[in-house]
Amino acid sequence: MNANFRQRLQRAWDRTGSLVCVGLDPDLKRIPAELRADPQPILAFNRRVVDATAHVAAAYKPQFAHYAAVGAEAELEATIDYIRAKAPDAVVILDAKRGDIGSTAEMYAREAFDRYQADCVTVNPYLGGDGILPFVNRAAFGAIVLCRTSNASAGQLQDVDVAGEPLYLAVARRAAAEWNPHQNLLLVVGATYPEELRMIRSAVPDIPFLVPGIGEQGGDLAGVLAGGLAADGNGLLISSSRGIIFAGGGEAGAIRAAAEDLNRQINALRKSA
Amino acid sequence: MNANFRQRLQRAWDRTGSLVCVGLDPDLKRIPAELRADPQPILAFNRRVVDATAHVAAAYKPQFAHYAAVGAEAELEATIDYIRAKAPDAVVILDAKRGDIGSTAEMYAREAFDRYQADCVTVNPYLGGDGILPFVNRAAFGAIVLCRTSNASAGQLQDVDVAGEPLYLAVARRAAAEWNPHQNLLLVVGATYPEELRMIRSAVPDIPFLVPGIGEQGGDLAGVLAGGLAADGNGLLISSSRGIIFAGGGEAGAIRAAAEDLNRQINALRKSA
Repeated sequence: MNANFRQRLQRAWDRTGSLVCVGLDPDLKRIPAELRADPQPILAFNRRVVDATAHVAAAYKPQFAHYAAVGAEAELEATIDYIRAKAPDAVVILDAKRGDIGSTAEMYAREAFDRYQADCVTVNPYLGGDGILPFVNRAAFGAIVLCRTSNASAGQLQDVDVAGEPLYLAVARRAAAEWNPHQNLLLVVGATYPEELRMIRSAVPDIPFLVPGIGEQGGDLAGVLAGGLAADGNGLLISSSRGIIFAGGGEAGAIRAAAEDLNRQINALRKSA
Repeated sequence: MNANFRQRLQRAWDRTGSLVCVGLDPDLKRIPAELRADPQPILAFNRRVVDATAHVAAAYKPQFAHYAAVGAEAELEATIDYIRAKAPDAVVILDAKRGDIGSTAEMYAREAFDRYQADCVTVNPYLGGDGILPFVNRAAFGAIVLCRTSNASAGQLQDVDVAGEPLYLAVARRAAAEWNPHQNLLLVVGATYPEELRMIRSAVPDIPFLVPGIGEQGGDLAGVLAGGLAADGNGLLISSSRGIIFAGGGEAGAIRAAAEDLNRQINALRKSA
Protein backbone atom coordinates (compact mmCIF):
# COMPACT_ATOMS: atom_id res chain seq x y z
CA MET A 1 0.00 0.00 0.00
CA ASN A 2 1.05 3.58 -0.66
CA ALA A 3 2.08 5.81 2.23
CA ASN A 4 0.86 8.88 0.40
CA PHE A 5 -0.88 9.20 -2.95
CA ARG A 6 0.72 12.50 -3.93
CA GLN A 7 4.20 11.08 -3.41
CA ARG A 8 3.14 7.98 -5.30
CA LEU A 9 2.12 10.08 -8.30
CA GLN A 10 5.35 12.07 -8.14
CA ARG A 11 7.32 8.83 -8.16
CA ALA A 12 5.42 7.64 -11.23
CA TRP A 13 6.31 10.83 -13.11
CA ASP A 14 9.92 10.78 -11.92
CA ARG A 15 10.70 7.15 -12.65
CA THR A 16 8.93 6.87 -16.01
CA GLY A 17 9.78 10.36 -17.28
CA SER A 18 6.35 10.21 -18.89
CA LEU A 19 2.97 11.90 -18.61
CA VAL A 20 1.21 9.14 -20.57
CA CYS A 21 -1.84 7.42 -19.12
CA VAL A 22 -2.91 4.31 -21.03
CA GLY A 23 -6.67 3.89 -20.99
CA LEU A 24 -7.77 0.26 -20.77
CA ASP A 25 -11.18 0.31 -22.49
CA PRO A 26 -11.30 -3.19 -23.92
CA ASP A 27 -14.12 -3.79 -26.38
CA LEU A 28 -14.67 -7.44 -27.23
CA LYS A 29 -15.66 -6.51 -30.77
CA ARG A 30 -12.26 -4.86 -31.36
CA ILE A 31 -9.99 -7.31 -29.54
CA PRO A 32 -7.85 -9.26 -32.04
CA ALA A 33 -9.41 -12.55 -33.10
CA GLU A 34 -6.57 -14.70 -31.74
CA LEU A 35 -7.20 -13.34 -28.23
CA ARG A 36 -10.99 -13.60 -28.38
CA ALA A 37 -10.61 -17.37 -28.13
CA ASP A 38 -8.91 -17.02 -24.72
CA PRO A 39 -11.17 -17.96 -21.80
CA GLN A 40 -10.36 -14.49 -20.39
CA PRO A 41 -10.05 -12.43 -23.58
CA ILE A 42 -10.12 -9.04 -21.89
CA LEU A 43 -7.35 -10.01 -19.50
CA ALA A 44 -5.30 -11.52 -22.33
CA PHE A 45 -5.65 -8.31 -24.34
CA ASN A 46 -4.85 -6.08 -21.36
CA ARG A 47 -1.72 -8.15 -20.67
CA ARG A 48 -0.62 -7.51 -24.23
CA VAL A 49 -1.20 -3.78 -23.79
CA VAL A 50 0.64 -3.62 -20.46
CA ASP A 51 3.59 -5.61 -21.80
CA ALA A 52 3.84 -3.25 -24.77
CA THR A 53 3.53 0.00 -22.83
CA ALA A 54 4.97 -0.50 -19.32
CA HIS A 55 8.19 1.38 -20.20
CA VAL A 56 6.31 4.58 -21.14
CA ALA A 57 3.21 4.58 -18.92
CA ALA A 58 2.99 6.84 -15.88
CA ALA A 59 -0.53 5.56 -15.30
CA TYR A 60 -3.10 3.00 -16.41
CA LYS A 61 -6.78 3.79 -16.42
CA PRO A 62 -9.20 0.87 -16.72
CA GLN A 63 -12.63 2.25 -17.68
CA PHE A 64 -15.21 0.49 -15.52
CA ALA A 65 -18.10 0.24 -18.01
CA HIS A 66 -16.07 -1.89 -20.36
CA TYR A 67 -15.78 -4.54 -17.66
CA ALA A 68 -19.20 -4.14 -16.03
CA ALA A 69 -21.12 -4.41 -19.30
CA VAL A 70 -19.79 -7.92 -19.87
CA GLY A 71 -19.44 -9.22 -16.31
CA ALA A 72 -15.64 -9.06 -16.40
CA GLU A 73 -14.97 -7.95 -12.82
CA ALA A 74 -12.55 -10.82 -12.24
CA GLU A 75 -10.61 -9.79 -15.34
CA LEU A 76 -10.49 -6.22 -14.05
CA GLU A 77 -9.05 -7.41 -10.74
CA ALA A 78 -6.50 -9.58 -12.53
CA THR A 79 -5.59 -6.73 -14.88
CA ILE A 80 -4.73 -4.50 -11.94
CA ASP A 81 -2.65 -7.29 -10.39
CA TYR A 82 -0.82 -7.63 -13.70
CA ILE A 83 -0.11 -3.89 -13.88
CA ARG A 84 1.39 -4.02 -10.38
CA ALA A 85 3.70 -6.84 -11.41
CA LYS A 86 4.80 -5.45 -14.78
CA ALA A 87 4.62 -1.68 -14.27
CA PRO A 88 5.16 -1.17 -10.55
CA ASP A 89 5.80 2.56 -10.88
CA ALA A 90 2.57 3.30 -12.73
CA VAL A 91 -0.43 4.72 -10.90
CA VAL A 92 -3.70 2.80 -11.36
CA ILE A 93 -6.81 4.92 -11.91
CA LEU A 94 -10.22 3.24 -11.71
CA ASP A 95 -12.28 5.32 -14.12
CA ALA A 96 -15.74 4.75 -12.67
CA LYS A 97 -17.00 8.32 -12.20
CA ARG A 98 -18.68 7.53 -8.90
CA GLY A 99 -20.99 10.04 -7.32
CA ASP A 100 -23.40 9.35 -4.47
CA ILE A 101 -24.34 10.45 -0.95
CA GLY A 102 -21.77 10.02 1.82
CA SER A 103 -22.69 6.61 3.21
CA THR A 104 -22.82 5.16 -0.30
CA ALA A 105 -19.66 6.95 -1.39
CA GLU A 106 -17.94 5.11 1.47
CA MET A 107 -18.97 1.83 -0.13
CA TYR A 108 -17.63 3.00 -3.49
CA ALA A 109 -14.32 3.96 -1.85
CA ARG A 110 -14.12 0.44 -0.45
CA GLU A 111 -14.80 -0.93 -3.92
CA ALA A 112 -12.08 1.15 -5.60
CA PHE A 113 -9.35 0.94 -2.98
CA ASP A 114 -9.98 -2.29 -1.06
CA ARG A 115 -11.56 -4.55 -3.65
CA TYR A 116 -9.85 -3.38 -6.85
CA GLN A 117 -6.78 -1.92 -5.11
CA ALA A 118 -6.67 1.08 -7.41
CA ASP A 119 -4.63 4.11 -6.35
CA CYS A 120 -7.34 6.57 -7.25
CA VAL A 121 -10.81 6.80 -8.75
CA THR A 122 -12.70 9.32 -10.87
CA VAL A 123 -15.68 10.98 -9.15
CA ASN A 124 -18.50 13.32 -10.14
CA PRO A 125 -19.02 16.61 -8.25
CA TYR A 126 -22.78 17.06 -8.79
CA LEU A 127 -23.58 15.94 -5.21
CA GLY A 128 -21.07 18.31 -3.62
CA GLY A 129 -18.45 17.57 -0.98
CA ASP A 130 -20.38 14.77 0.78
CA GLY A 131 -19.88 12.65 -2.31
CA ILE A 132 -16.16 13.49 -2.68
CA LEU A 133 -14.69 13.41 0.81
CA PRO A 134 -15.03 9.65 1.39
CA PHE A 135 -12.61 9.17 -1.52
CA VAL A 136 -9.93 11.53 -0.20
CA ASN A 137 -10.09 10.76 3.51
CA ARG A 138 -7.26 8.27 3.21
CA ALA A 139 -4.03 10.02 2.17
CA ALA A 140 -2.78 6.82 0.57
CA PHE A 141 -5.43 7.06 -2.16
CA GLY A 142 -6.70 9.81 -4.43
CA ALA A 143 -9.79 11.10 -6.21
CA ILE A 144 -10.03 12.72 -9.65
CA VAL A 145 -13.01 15.06 -9.79
CA LEU A 146 -14.76 15.75 -13.11
CA CYS A 147 -14.24 19.43 -13.88
CA ARG A 148 -14.47 20.12 -17.65
CA THR A 149 -15.07 16.90 -19.56
CA SER A 150 -14.05 16.15 -23.15
CA ASN A 151 -17.46 15.42 -24.70
CA ALA A 152 -19.47 17.64 -27.03
CA SER A 153 -22.30 18.40 -24.56
CA ALA A 154 -19.94 19.03 -21.63
CA GLY A 155 -20.82 22.71 -21.54
CA GLN A 156 -24.55 22.23 -21.00
CA LEU A 157 -23.99 22.20 -17.24
CA GLN A 158 -20.27 22.81 -16.85
CA ASP A 159 -20.24 26.18 -18.65
CA VAL A 160 -23.25 27.79 -16.99
CA ASP A 161 -22.37 31.23 -15.69
CA VAL A 162 -22.08 31.40 -11.92
CA ALA A 163 -21.45 34.90 -10.63
CA GLY A 164 -19.38 35.80 -13.66
CA GLU A 165 -17.42 32.60 -14.20
CA PRO A 166 -18.26 29.18 -15.61
CA LEU A 167 -19.35 26.44 -13.23
CA TYR A 168 -16.30 24.31 -14.04
CA LEU A 169 -14.02 27.01 -12.60
CA ALA A 170 -16.13 27.19 -9.45
CA VAL A 171 -15.80 23.40 -9.18
CA ALA A 172 -12.03 23.60 -9.62
CA ARG A 173 -11.66 26.28 -6.94
CA ARG A 174 -13.92 24.53 -4.47
CA ALA A 175 -12.19 21.21 -5.07
CA ALA A 176 -8.78 22.74 -4.42
CA ALA A 177 -9.91 24.65 -1.34
CA GLU A 178 -12.38 22.31 0.37
CA TRP A 179 -12.05 18.79 -0.97
CA ASN A 180 -8.31 18.31 -0.85
CA PRO A 181 -7.28 17.63 2.76
CA HIS A 182 -4.29 15.47 1.86
CA GLN A 183 -3.26 16.99 -1.50
CA ASN A 184 -4.64 13.84 -3.09
CA LEU A 185 -7.25 15.38 -5.38
CA LEU A 186 -6.89 15.76 -9.15
CA LEU A 187 -9.25 17.14 -11.79
CA VAL A 188 -10.49 15.73 -15.09
CA VAL A 189 -10.01 18.35 -17.81
CA GLY A 190 -10.58 17.32 -21.43
CA ALA A 191 -7.96 17.80 -24.15
CA THR A 192 -10.71 18.87 -26.55
CA TYR A 193 -11.04 22.23 -24.76
CA PRO A 194 -7.51 23.65 -24.40
CA GLU A 195 -8.69 27.19 -23.65
CA GLU A 196 -10.81 25.98 -20.71
CA LEU A 197 -7.86 23.87 -19.57
CA ARG A 198 -5.62 26.94 -19.54
CA MET A 199 -8.13 28.86 -17.42
CA ILE A 200 -8.41 26.00 -14.94
CA ARG A 201 -4.60 25.77 -14.66
CA SER A 202 -4.49 29.48 -13.84
CA ALA A 203 -7.11 29.02 -11.13
CA VAL A 204 -5.53 25.96 -9.48
CA PRO A 205 -1.79 25.94 -10.26
CA ASP A 206 -0.90 22.99 -8.04
CA ILE A 207 -3.66 20.47 -8.85
CA PRO A 208 -2.72 17.67 -11.27
CA PHE A 209 -5.05 17.10 -14.21
CA LEU A 210 -6.12 13.87 -15.82
CA VAL A 211 -6.59 14.82 -19.47
CA PRO A 212 -8.73 12.51 -21.63
CA GLY A 213 -9.72 13.22 -25.21
CA ILE A 214 -6.41 12.65 -27.02
CA GLY A 215 -6.66 10.27 -29.96
CA GLU A 216 -10.08 9.26 -31.30
CA GLN A 217 -11.75 12.23 -29.59
CA GLY A 218 -9.40 14.64 -31.44
CA GLY A 219 -7.93 16.62 -28.53
CA ASP A 220 -5.24 19.27 -28.98
CA LEU A 221 -1.98 17.95 -27.55
CA ALA A 222 0.06 21.12 -28.08
CA GLY A 223 -2.65 23.19 -26.43
CA VAL A 224 -2.77 20.82 -23.47
CA LEU A 225 0.96 21.08 -22.87
CA ALA A 226 1.09 24.84 -23.43
CA GLY A 227 -1.77 25.52 -21.05
CA GLY A 228 -1.72 22.66 -18.58
CA LEU A 229 1.79 21.91 -17.36
CA ALA A 230 2.46 22.71 -13.73
CA ALA A 231 5.44 24.88 -12.80
CA ASP A 232 7.62 21.79 -12.22
CA GLY A 233 6.96 20.46 -15.74
CA ASN A 234 4.60 17.74 -14.54
CA GLY A 235 1.01 18.24 -13.37
CA LEU A 236 -0.58 16.22 -16.17
CA LEU A 237 -1.60 12.67 -16.92
CA ILE A 238 -2.54 12.64 -20.60
CA SER A 239 -4.79 9.71 -21.35
CA SER A 240 -5.25 7.89 -24.61
CA SER A 241 -7.33 4.73 -24.80
CA ARG A 242 -8.48 3.56 -28.21
CA GLY A 243 -5.67 5.45 -29.97
CA ILE A 244 -3.15 3.22 -28.20
CA ILE A 245 -4.82 -0.09 -27.47
CA PHE A 246 -6.44 -0.55 -30.88
CA ALA A 247 -3.48 0.78 -32.88
CA GLY A 248 -2.80 -1.55 -35.80
CA GLY A 249 -5.89 -3.56 -34.92
CA GLY A 250 -4.51 -4.29 -31.44
CA GLU A 251 -1.22 -5.80 -32.59
CA ALA A 252 1.56 -5.64 -29.95
CA GLY A 253 4.13 -3.78 -32.04
CA ALA A 254 1.62 -1.17 -33.11
CA ILE A 255 0.44 -0.66 -29.53
CA ARG A 256 4.02 -0.17 -28.38
CA ALA A 257 4.73 2.26 -31.23
CA ALA A 258 1.58 4.28 -30.53
CA ALA A 259 2.42 4.64 -26.83
CA GLU A 260 6.05 5.51 -27.54
CA ASP A 261 4.99 8.00 -30.19
CA LEU A 262 2.57 9.74 -27.83
CA ASN A 263 5.23 9.87 -25.12
CA ARG A 264 7.77 11.29 -27.59
CA GLN A 265 5.34 13.96 -28.83
CA ILE A 266 4.46 14.97 -25.29
CA ASN A 267 8.06 15.17 -24.13
CA ALA A 268 9.10 17.18 -27.17
CA LEU A 269 6.31 19.66 -26.46
CA ARG A 270 7.23 19.62 -22.78
CA LYS A 271 10.85 20.48 -23.54
CA SER A 272 9.88 23.42 -25.72
CA ALA A 273 7.26 24.72 -23.27
CA MET B 1 -38.95 -7.28 -22.07
CA ASN B 2 -41.12 -4.21 -21.74
CA ALA B 3 -42.76 -2.70 -24.77
CA ASN B 4 -42.57 0.75 -23.25
CA PHE B 5 -41.09 1.90 -19.97
CA ARG B 6 -43.66 4.62 -19.26
CA GLN B 7 -46.52 2.12 -19.61
CA ARG B 8 -44.55 -0.33 -17.46
CA LEU B 9 -44.30 2.25 -14.67
CA GLN B 10 -47.99 3.10 -14.96
CA ARG B 11 -48.84 -0.59 -14.64
CA ALA B 12 -46.69 -0.84 -11.51
CA TRP B 13 -48.57 2.05 -9.89
CA ASP B 14 -51.98 0.76 -11.03
CA ARG B 15 -51.58 -2.86 -9.98
CA THR B 16 -49.86 -2.27 -6.64
CA GLY B 17 -51.79 0.87 -5.66
CA SER B 18 -48.52 1.93 -4.08
CA LEU B 19 -45.85 4.59 -4.56
CA VAL B 20 -43.33 2.71 -2.39
CA CYS B 21 -39.87 1.92 -3.72
CA VAL B 22 -37.91 -0.51 -1.57
CA GLY B 23 -34.19 0.27 -1.61
CA LEU B 24 -32.00 -2.81 -1.52
CA ASP B 25 -28.81 -1.53 0.15
CA PRO B 26 -27.61 -4.70 1.87
CA ASP B 27 -24.78 -4.14 4.33
CA LEU B 28 -23.13 -7.36 5.50
CA LYS B 29 -22.54 -5.86 8.94
CA ARG B 30 -26.29 -5.31 9.41
CA ILE B 31 -27.64 -8.50 7.83
CA PRO B 32 -29.09 -10.79 10.51
CA ALA B 33 -26.57 -13.31 11.84
CA GLU B 34 -28.58 -16.37 10.72
CA LEU B 35 -28.34 -15.19 7.09
CA ARG B 36 -24.68 -14.23 7.21
CA ALA B 37 -23.84 -17.93 7.28
CA ASP B 38 -25.53 -18.44 3.91
CA PRO B 39 -23.04 -18.85 1.03
CA GLN B 40 -24.87 -15.95 -0.66
CA PRO B 41 -25.84 -13.84 2.35
CA ILE B 42 -26.85 -10.75 0.35
CA LEU B 43 -29.13 -12.75 -1.89
CA ALA B 44 -30.63 -14.58 1.08
CA PHE B 45 -31.35 -11.28 2.79
CA ASN B 46 -32.79 -9.68 -0.35
CA ARG B 47 -35.09 -12.68 -0.82
CA ARG B 48 -36.38 -12.11 2.68
CA VAL B 49 -37.00 -8.44 1.91
CA VAL B 50 -38.74 -9.16 -1.39
CA ASP B 51 -40.94 -11.85 0.16
CA ALA B 52 -41.95 -9.45 2.92
CA THR B 53 -42.66 -6.44 0.69
CA ALA B 54 -43.82 -7.68 -2.74
CA HIS B 55 -47.48 -6.86 -1.98
CA VAL B 56 -46.72 -3.16 -1.36
CA ALA B 57 -43.75 -2.36 -3.61
CA ALA B 58 -44.23 -0.44 -6.84
CA ALA B 59 -40.46 -0.58 -7.35
CA TYR B 60 -37.24 -2.09 -6.04
CA LYS B 61 -33.98 -0.16 -6.16
CA PRO B 62 -30.77 -2.13 -5.63
CA GLN B 63 -27.97 0.35 -4.85
CA PHE B 64 -24.94 -0.71 -6.88
CA ALA B 65 -22.14 0.20 -4.43
CA HIS B 66 -23.46 -2.24 -1.86
CA TYR B 67 -22.84 -5.09 -4.31
CA ALA B 68 -19.71 -3.76 -6.03
CA ALA B 69 -17.83 -3.13 -2.77
CA VAL B 70 -18.02 -6.81 -1.86
CA GLY B 71 -17.88 -8.45 -5.29
CA ALA B 72 -21.52 -9.50 -5.18
CA GLU B 73 -22.46 -8.97 -8.84
CA ALA B 74 -23.84 -12.51 -9.12
CA GLU B 75 -26.04 -11.87 -6.09
CA LEU B 76 -27.28 -8.64 -7.68
CA GLU B 77 -28.21 -10.52 -10.86
CA ALA B 78 -29.96 -13.22 -8.86
CA THR B 79 -31.77 -10.61 -6.76
CA ILE B 80 -33.25 -9.03 -9.88
CA ASP B 81 -34.32 -12.45 -11.15
CA TYR B 82 -36.00 -13.07 -7.79
CA ILE B 83 -37.85 -9.74 -7.93
CA ARG B 84 -39.17 -10.66 -11.40
CA ALA B 85 -40.50 -13.97 -10.07
CA LYS B 86 -42.04 -12.70 -6.83
CA ALA B 87 -43.03 -9.12 -7.67
CA PRO B 88 -43.66 -9.13 -11.42
CA ASP B 89 -45.47 -5.79 -11.40
CA ALA B 90 -42.65 -3.91 -9.67
CA VAL B 91 -40.22 -1.77 -11.66
CA VAL B 92 -36.52 -2.53 -11.06
CA ILE B 93 -34.24 0.51 -10.74
CA LEU B 94 -30.49 -0.01 -10.85
CA ASP B 95 -29.22 2.81 -8.65
CA ALA B 96 -25.73 3.23 -10.10
CA LYS B 97 -25.66 6.97 -10.90
CA ARG B 98 -23.78 6.47 -14.14
CA GLY B 99 -22.34 9.44 -15.97
CA ASP B 100 -19.81 9.30 -18.78
CA ILE B 101 -19.22 10.32 -22.40
CA GLY B 102 -21.48 8.86 -25.08
CA SER B 103 -19.51 5.80 -26.18
CA THR B 104 -18.97 4.78 -22.56
CA ALA B 105 -22.55 5.58 -21.59
CA GLU B 106 -23.57 3.03 -24.26
CA MET B 107 -21.57 0.40 -22.36
CA TYR B 108 -23.27 1.38 -19.10
CA ALA B 109 -26.67 1.11 -20.79
CA ARG B 110 -25.75 -2.41 -21.88
CA GLU B 111 -24.71 -3.17 -18.29
CA ALA B 112 -27.97 -1.92 -16.78
CA PHE B 113 -30.46 -3.21 -19.32
CA ASP B 114 -28.81 -6.24 -20.96
CA ARG B 115 -26.64 -7.65 -18.22
CA TYR B 116 -28.68 -6.80 -15.10
CA GLN B 117 -32.02 -6.55 -16.93
CA ALA B 118 -33.11 -3.55 -14.90
CA ASP B 119 -35.99 -1.43 -16.18
CA CYS B 120 -34.20 1.83 -15.53
CA VAL B 121 -31.00 3.27 -14.10
CA THR B 122 -30.04 6.43 -12.23
CA VAL B 123 -27.71 8.79 -14.15
CA ASN B 124 -25.78 11.99 -13.40
CA PRO B 125 -26.32 15.08 -15.58
CA TYR B 126 -22.90 16.75 -15.14
CA LEU B 127 -21.75 15.65 -18.63
CA GLY B 128 -24.86 16.95 -20.38
CA GLY B 129 -27.05 15.19 -22.92
CA ASP B 130 -24.31 12.99 -24.43
CA GLY B 131 -24.17 11.11 -21.16
CA ILE B 132 -27.95 10.76 -20.81
CA LEU B 133 -29.29 9.92 -24.27
CA PRO B 134 -27.76 6.42 -24.53
CA PHE B 135 -29.95 5.46 -21.55
CA VAL B 136 -33.22 6.74 -23.03
CA ASN B 137 -32.78 5.72 -26.67
CA ARG B 138 -34.66 2.50 -26.10
CA ALA B 139 -38.30 3.22 -25.19
CA ALA B 140 -38.49 -0.05 -23.29
CA PHE B 141 -36.12 1.25 -20.62
CA GLY B 142 -35.79 4.44 -18.62
CA ALA B 143 -33.30 6.79 -17.01
CA ILE B 144 -33.63 8.69 -13.74
CA VAL B 145 -31.55 11.86 -13.83
CA LEU B 146 -30.16 13.35 -10.62
CA CYS B 147 -31.82 16.73 -10.15
CA ARG B 148 -31.88 17.80 -6.47
CA THR B 149 -30.33 15.11 -4.29
CA SER B 150 -31.10 14.39 -0.64
CA ASN B 151 -27.65 14.91 0.91
CA ALA B 152 -26.47 17.85 3.01
CA SER B 153 -24.00 19.25 0.45
CA ALA B 154 -26.41 18.84 -2.49
CA GLY B 155 -26.74 22.59 -2.89
CA GLN B 156 -23.04 23.26 -3.49
CA LEU B 157 -23.51 22.73 -7.21
CA GLN B 158 -27.23 22.10 -7.59
CA ASP B 159 -28.35 25.43 -6.08
CA VAL B 160 -25.98 27.76 -7.93
CA ASP B 161 -27.88 30.62 -9.51
CA VAL B 162 -28.17 30.33 -13.28
CA ALA B 163 -29.86 33.33 -14.86
CA GLY B 164 -32.13 33.80 -11.88
CA GLU B 165 -32.99 30.22 -11.03
CA PRO B 166 -31.15 27.37 -9.34
CA LEU B 167 -29.20 24.93 -11.51
CA TYR B 168 -31.42 22.01 -10.47
CA LEU B 169 -34.42 23.73 -12.09
CA ALA B 170 -32.43 24.28 -15.26
CA VAL B 171 -31.53 20.58 -15.21
CA ALA B 172 -35.19 19.61 -14.74
CA ARG B 173 -36.35 21.80 -17.63
CA ARG B 174 -33.61 20.63 -19.97
CA ALA B 175 -34.20 16.99 -19.07
CA ALA B 176 -37.91 17.30 -19.80
CA ALA B 177 -37.39 19.20 -23.05
CA GLU B 178 -34.29 17.62 -24.58
CA TRP B 179 -33.50 14.30 -22.94
CA ASN B 180 -36.91 12.66 -22.96
CA PRO B 181 -37.61 11.39 -26.48
CA HIS B 182 -39.78 8.47 -25.35
CA GLN B 183 -41.28 9.89 -22.14
CA ASN B 184 -39.00 7.48 -20.30
CA LEU B 185 -37.06 9.95 -18.17
CA LEU B 186 -37.57 10.52 -14.44
CA LEU B 187 -35.81 12.81 -11.97
CA VAL B 188 -34.23 12.17 -8.58
CA VAL B 189 -35.56 14.71 -6.09
CA GLY B 190 -34.73 14.24 -2.41
CA ALA B 191 -37.40 14.10 0.28
CA THR B 192 -35.18 16.18 2.55
CA TYR B 193 -35.88 19.32 0.47
CA PRO B 194 -39.69 19.50 0.04
CA GLU B 195 -39.68 23.15 -1.04
CA GLU B 196 -37.25 22.43 -3.89
CA LEU B 197 -39.36 19.40 -4.80
CA ARG B 198 -42.47 21.59 -5.05
CA MET B 199 -40.67 24.02 -7.37
CA ILE B 200 -39.46 21.19 -9.61
CA ARG B 201 -42.99 19.74 -9.80
CA SER B 202 -44.27 23.14 -10.94
CA ALA B 203 -41.58 23.30 -13.63
CA VAL B 204 -42.10 19.77 -14.99
CA PRO B 205 -45.64 18.64 -14.16
CA ASP B 206 -45.51 15.37 -16.10
CA ILE B 207 -42.12 13.92 -15.12
CA PRO B 208 -42.16 11.20 -12.46
CA PHE B 209 -39.82 11.66 -9.49
CA LEU B 210 -37.80 9.08 -7.62
CA VAL B 211 -37.70 10.45 -4.08
CA PRO B 212 -34.99 9.13 -1.76
CA GLY B 213 -34.31 10.42 1.73
CA ILE B 214 -37.29 9.01 3.63
CA GLY B 215 -36.36 7.09 6.78
CA GLU B 216 -32.81 7.35 8.15
CA GLN B 217 -32.15 10.55 6.18
CA GLY B 218 -35.15 12.24 7.81
CA GLY B 219 -37.14 13.34 4.77
CA ASP B 220 -40.54 15.04 5.02
CA LEU B 221 -43.20 12.63 3.74
CA ALA B 222 -46.13 15.05 4.03
CA GLY B 223 -44.18 17.71 2.17
CA VAL B 224 -43.28 15.26 -0.57
CA LEU B 225 -46.91 14.27 -1.15
CA ALA B 226 -48.22 17.82 -0.93
CA GLY B 227 -45.69 19.17 -3.38
CA GLY B 228 -44.78 16.23 -5.58
CA LEU B 229 -47.87 14.31 -6.69
CA ALA B 230 -48.69 14.53 -10.37
CA ALA B 231 -52.20 15.56 -11.45
CA ASP B 232 -53.30 11.90 -11.72
CA GLY B 233 -52.31 11.16 -8.10
CA ASN B 234 -49.18 9.24 -9.10
CA GLY B 235 -45.92 10.73 -10.36
CA LEU B 236 -43.80 9.58 -7.40
CA LEU B 237 -41.72 6.60 -6.37
CA ILE B 238 -40.88 7.20 -2.73
CA SER B 239 -37.84 5.21 -1.74
CA SER B 240 -36.87 3.92 1.67
CA SER B 241 -33.90 1.62 2.09
CA ARG B 242 -32.48 1.18 5.58
CA GLY B 243 -35.78 2.23 7.20
CA ILE B 244 -37.44 -0.84 5.68
CA ILE B 245 -34.78 -3.50 5.21
CA PHE B 246 -33.17 -3.13 8.63
CA ALA B 247 -36.42 -2.64 10.54
CA GLY B 248 -36.37 -4.77 13.70
CA GLY B 249 -32.79 -5.76 12.94
CA GLY B 250 -33.80 -7.21 9.56
CA GLU B 251 -36.49 -9.58 10.87
CA ALA B 252 -39.09 -10.52 8.23
CA GLY B 253 -42.15 -9.42 10.19
CA ALA B 254 -40.61 -6.05 11.00
CA ILE B 255 -39.61 -5.51 7.38
CA ARG B 256 -43.16 -6.29 6.25
CA ALA B 257 -44.64 -3.98 8.88
CA ALA B 258 -42.27 -1.12 7.97
CA ALA B 259 -43.14 -1.37 4.27
CA GLU B 260 -46.88 -1.64 4.95
CA ASP B 261 -46.69 1.26 7.35
CA LEU B 262 -44.92 3.48 4.82
CA ASN B 263 -47.44 2.52 2.13
CA ARG B 264 -50.34 3.28 4.50
CA GLN B 265 -48.90 6.67 5.46
CA ILE B 266 -48.33 7.59 1.84
CA ASN B 267 -51.78 6.53 0.72
CA ALA B 268 -53.46 8.39 3.59
CA LEU B 269 -51.60 11.55 2.62
CA ARG B 270 -52.39 10.91 -1.04
CA LYS B 271 -56.11 10.63 -0.30
CA SER B 272 -56.15 13.91 1.59
CA ALA B 273 -54.03 15.73 -1.01
